[in-house]
Amino acid sequence: MSRMLTEIREQPAALERTLRSGLSAGAKLAKAVARKRPRLIVLAARGTSDNAAQFGRYLLEIMTGIPVSLAAPSVTTLYQTQLDLAGAMVVAISQSGESTDTNLVLERAKAQGALTVGITNEAGSTLATLAEHVFLVKAGKERSVAATKTYTGQLLMLYMVAHAVGARIRLDDLRALPEWADAALSLEASARERAGRYRFVERTVVIGRGLNYSNAQEFALEMMETCYVVAEGFSSADFMHGPIAMVDPSLPLFMFAPCGATWPGSEDVLSRLGRLRAETLLITDVGNKVAAGQDRALVIPARLGRKRSAEKWAAPEELYTPIPYIIPAQLFAAALAEEKGLNPDRPRTLSKVTRTL
Amino acid sequence: MSRMLTEIREQPAALERTLRSGLSAGAKLAKAVARKRPRLIVLAARGTSDNAAQFGRYLLEIMTGIPVSLAAPSVTTLYQTQLDLAGAMVVAISQSGESTDTNLVLERAKAQGALTVGITNEAGSTLATLAEHVFLVKAGKERSVAATKTYTGQLLMLYMVAHAVGARIRLDDLRALPEWADAALSLEASARERAGRYRFVERTVVIGRGLNYSNAQEFALEMMETCYVVAEGFSSADFMHGPIAMVDPSLPLFMFAPCGATWPGSEDVLSRLGRLRAETLLITDVGNKVAAGQDRALVIPARLGRKRSAEKWAAPEELYTPIPYIIPAQLFAAALAEEKGLNPDRPRTLSKVTRTL
Repeated sequence: MSRMLTEIREQPAALERTLRSGLSAGAKLAKAVARKRPRLIVLAARGTSDNAAQFGRYLLEIMTGIPVSLAAPSVTTLYQTQLDLAGAMVVAISQSGESTDTNLVLERAKAQGALTVGITNEAGSTLATLAEHVFLVKAGKERSVAATKTYTGQLLMLYMVAHAVGARIRLDDLRALPEWADAALSLEASARERAGRYRFVERTVVIGRGLNYSNAQEFALEMMETCYVVAEGFSSADFMHGPIAMVDPSLPLFMFAPCGATWPGSEDVLSRLGRLRAETLLITDVGNKVAAGQDRALVIPARLGRKRSAEKWAAPEELYTPIPYIIPAQLFAAALAEEKGLNPDRPRTLSKVTRTL
Repeated sequence: MSRMLTEIREQPAALERTLRSGLSAGAKLAKAVARKRPRLIVLAARGTSDNAAQFGRYLLEIMTGIPVSLAAPSVTTLYQTQLDLAGAMVVAISQSGESTDTNLVLERAKAQGALTVGITNEAGSTLATLAEHVFLVKAGKERSVAATKTYTGQLLMLYMVAHAVGARIRLDDLRALPEWADAALSLEASARERAGRYRFVERTVVIGRGLNYSNAQEFALEMMETCYVVAEGFSSADFMHGPIAMVDPSLPLFMFAPCGATWPGSEDVLSRLGRLRAETLLITDVGNKVAAGQDRALVIPARLGRKRSAEKWAAPEELYTPIPYIIPAQLFAAALAEEKGLNPDRPRTLSKVTRTL
C-alpha cells in the first residue's frame, strides 16, 4: 500500500490532534486581534499550502469581512518591493516551514509592524521561529510527496485563525470534523472502482467554487503530481468564461458539488456539460439530494452527530464541507496513480521541499 | 483571414487611441489620489479581463507599494458578504462593461466610500456609468470571441492607473509601446511556421512570472478557447512545486522569457526542462541574448526609439514587456486554430458576453 493512502487514512486522528494544538494558539491570537483588528489579511504560500491559502481567502473574507490578498511572493523576493503592510495580518502557510520566499514575505511584513501568523507542521522550522503566532499542524511526518494530511490540517487551522479573528465559527462544529472525515474515508472502495475508467486519461478539468475552489485546485495538483495528468482547476464562473470551449465527450471533468450558495451555479454548469455530452464525476454529500442522485457521483455520508445551532445566523450551508470533500478526491488520485502503474509517493522529478529562486 | 488576426494587427493603432483616451482620466484620478492615498487596491474582473487584472496586481504592488487583492466576486454575489473596503480603490475591468458580478462588487464598494475605477471598451455600459473614474479602452469593436486588442488596451490602461497612483512610470515610455507592438507583429510569419508542429497537441503548459505571469494565463486561455487545447498557465515558481512531475518529451511547453528580475528563475526552469528532454518554445526579445539565442524562440525585435532615462531609478528591466510579448502568442494561437481547422472567431459553446450566476 502506498504511503499516500496510509496518510490519507490517518487524517481523522491528525485532525483531532491538530484541533487541540490550535486551541491555545487561537486564544492567544484572539487577544492580539482584540487589541487591534487587522485592516487587511495577506496569505503567503506555495504549492498545496497555496491551495489551502485559497480556501483561507474565501473563509476569512466571508466570515470576517476583512479583505484578503494572496501574496505574490516575487513582488518581495525578485522585485524587492517594500509593501505597505502596517495594520495587516500576514499568514504564511508551509508544511516544512522552510519555504524561503514565503518566509521572506513574513519577515518583511513583521519589520513593518504587521501581525504575523505561521501555519506549519514543523515546530523547529524557520517559519515557527519567525512568526509571532504559530499554529502547529499535528499531522505527523508526511512522507509521500503528495500532500494529504497536511492540507486538511492547514484547512482546519485556517478555521481556527478565522475563529480567532472573530468569525462566527463554532468550535463544536470543528470538533465534529474528524468524524465527518472518517465517514468520507468509507469511499475508498468506490473511489478505486471509479478510477479504473480513467486509466488512459491524459488531461482533465476540475471545477469548484467559493469555499470548495481550493479543493478543485488541490485535486488538480494531486492528479498532476501523482498521475501526470494535465489537470486544470477552475471556478465554475471562470470556466464558463472561455475554457468550456474545450469540452467535448473525450474530456473528463470532476466537480465539487455541495448544497448551498454555489449549487445553483454548479447545477447550471452541469446541465451545460450534459448538453455537450461530457462526462462529469461529482463529489457531493447525501445532503445535496440532486447531486447525490446522479449516476456519476462519489457521495459522502451525512455529517454525524450534527447538532442544530440554536442561533439563527446565516453561516454558509457548505461552510464545513472542504475537509470531508477533499478526501474522496485524494483516494481517487491515489487509486488512479496505482491504476496507471505509478508510485504516488515518489513522483518523478520532485522532492518534498522545494526552494524557489 | 480570421477576424482574430485582423484584430491582432489593429493593436498598434488601438494602443495609440487608448493612450490618448487614458491621459485625461489619469489626470483626474491622480487628483483624487493626491487627496487620499488608497490603503488597498482591489481588482475585479473575469476571463481575459481577469488576466489583465493579474498584470495589474504585479504592476501596482511593485510600482506603488500598495497591497493589491484580486476580488473573488462570489464572496459578494453568492455569500452576500459586506467587505470592509473603506479607504480602498476598487478597479473593475470588463470589455463589455456588462459583467454583472464585477459590477456588483464595484457598486457595493462605492456604497462604502471606496474610490471606484472602471476600465472598459464601452462608454455607454453599466460599468462606465457606475465607476467614478472611467478609463475607456479605444480598441474599437472586438468581434472575435478571443480577446486580443481589448487585452492589450486593458494592460495599457493599468499602466495609466498606476501612473495616476504615483508609480514612476514615464508617459514617454508608454508612448513608445504602440511602436514596439508594431515591431512584434513582424513575427506573424514565424508564428505561423512554428504552429504547424503543434497541430496534434491536446495539452500544454505555459510558464511566465511576475509581470509576465498574466501573459502565461492569457496565452493559455487563448489556446483553450480557440484551439481546444487543455492549456495551463503557471508561474515558474509554482510550476516547480509539483506540476513539473507531468513533464516528459510528449508535453510541449511555452515560456515568456524577458531579461530582468525573473530571468534567473526562468533559466533555472529551462535547464530543468532540458534535462527532462522537454521541448519549450520561448517568447523573448533580442535584448535577452541568452533566450534569443535558443533554437526554439519567437524573438521580438528591439524596442525602437528607446531613450535612456536621465533618472537613475530602478524600474524593473521588463516593465514594458507584457504588451509586445503577448503579440506573438496571439499570432501563434490564431495560426494554430487555423492549422487545426478551427475558426478562432467563433469557438463552439461560447458567446462574447458571459453572464455569471
